[in-house]
Amino acid sequence: MHNKRPLILVSNDDGYNFKGIQSLIKVARTMGDVFVVAPAIHQSGMSSAITFANPVRTRLVTSQQGFTVYLTNGTPADCVKLALSQLMDRLPDIVLAGINHGSNHGMNTLYSGTMGCVFEGTQRNIPSVAFSYCDHSPDADTARCEPIVEHVVKRVLEKGLPAGVCLNVNIPKMEEPFKGIKVTEGDMGRWLNDWVHGVDPTGGDYYWLTGKFEMADNGRHVTDYYWLEQGYVTVTPTRVDQTAMDMKQQISDLLL
Amino acid sequence: MHNKRPLILVSNDDGYNFKGIQSLIKVARTMGDVFVVAPAIHQSGMSSAITFANPVRTRLVTSQQGFTVYLTNGTPADCVKLALSQLMDRLPDIVLAGINHGSNHGMNTLYSGTMGCVFEGTQRNIPSVAFSYCDHSPDADTARCEPIVEHVVKRVLEKGLPAGVCLNVNIPKMEEPFKGIKVTEGDMGRWLNDWVHGVDPTGGDYYWLTGKFEMADNGRHVTDYYWLEQGYVTVTPTRVDQTAMDMKQQISDLLL
Repeated sequence: MHNKRPLILVSNDDGYNFKGIQSLIKVARTMGDVFVVAPAIHQSGMSSAITFANPVRTRLVTSQQGFTVYLTNGTPADCVKLALSQLMDRLPDIVLAGINHGSNHGMNTLYSGTMGCVFEGTQRNIPSVAFSYCDHSPDADTARCEPIVEHVVKRVLEKGLPAGVCLNVNIPKMEEPFKGIKVTEGDMGRWLNDWVHGVDPTGGDYYWLTGKFEMADNGRHVTDYYWLEQGYVTVTPTRVDQTAMDMKQQISDLLL
Repeated sequence: MHNKRPLILVSNDDGYNFKGIQSLIKVARTMGDVFVVAPAIHQSGMSSAITFANPVRTRLVTSQQGFTVYLTNGTPADCVKLALSQLMDRLPDIVLAGINHGSNHGMNTLYSGTMGCVFEGTQRNIPSVAFSYCDHSPDADTARCEPIVEHVVKRVLEKGLPAGVCLNVNIPKMEEPFKGIKVTEGDMGRWLNDWVHGVDPTGGDYYWLTGKFEMADNGRHVTDYYWLEQGYVTVTPTRVDQTAMDMKQQISDLLL
């Protein structure tokens, strides 16, 4: 007996007890059966890290008709790998990650555990979408994002995505209604001055990561960062394969 | 008084006490002043993960004319960030990572801490090269790679690299001499069946990541994986920005 409702896998990197993933689950449950495999505690900044020096534990929290939740002590990528390979009876129709508390525009993509989730789905040829809201606060009003999530998920469920490409959706924090959706490209900003040097209570010194975001002057003026500042939701098509195809000849000339 | 020898930053993900990084340091010291910031213990599979929920510790191991070594308890990306922002007096002329014990062809790029190192250099506009030897063993004969490392580093020091692009160099394990160098593209293989479910000594169950590598039939036949099997050293130009530039119109049509 095949269930005709879409099967939707949901994960994140903030951990299950965050408003963002609860908003994402709420929308997803209106559209299909929902299977959640998420970190029990936050795994922000974990990129596509995977755990193989240690085992990963899972805990089944909810198992009811059309709604299952597992928590793990693994990374975001671990969660999706476990879901796809071990925990789900069949592959999902879509992989959703987020809603992240905090932007994942531009170069943040590289560090984002939210993106780590969707790169797993993309590698398995499952349409995959990451959502991030530009408000770091645990109290961020992620309910504001729900109509956007619904629109994007509905379209992707209907039409799929090109092979090897996932979507990185960022939603601006603003009082007024969003101005619209822009399909755009990642900025080339970067984090600088990014460590505080301190002394701990026992006298040992340490470095603690922090950061100041700086836009790189690379001629790309109309990026996700630009449109977010203008009040638009941004969608950046993102490729899991990082080969610089157009550079093969130039690098051959340089090396050979 | 400016030192005219190149300043070379070296890191890895296996940790400092591995033969691969020692081979890399050996070659680098013939070519310039060498500054090492590396994990004290292995950080394989850490991708571009960064540490901000905890402080990162450093330990100065060696500080002599033209050769400095710091170890940290951070990730590979943390090591390079710390080096560039805090530990070095000036930015290096090149960032080198490896020599990794084990291949980083194709989709391994996504998970590799070795690649995590070079993505940091690339973001700071410093030419950056990752080296990996296709032998996982701690006893891997990484000395065999040294002439290749010397050739590539010499060329990149002379000529630089295009903005936003780093090199992912993989070196095959073979008895006979390498057949040459091929500048190529990442394969689209993927890891499947990748968890062992077991029971620990106290009766708790766990999942432990393992994997079987499967080539995806995507029409890309002449990839890094292909050339490595043929006995060639491969160089894959790799872009730090993952935006799928050619997909913007298609995704706009799909969503808007």
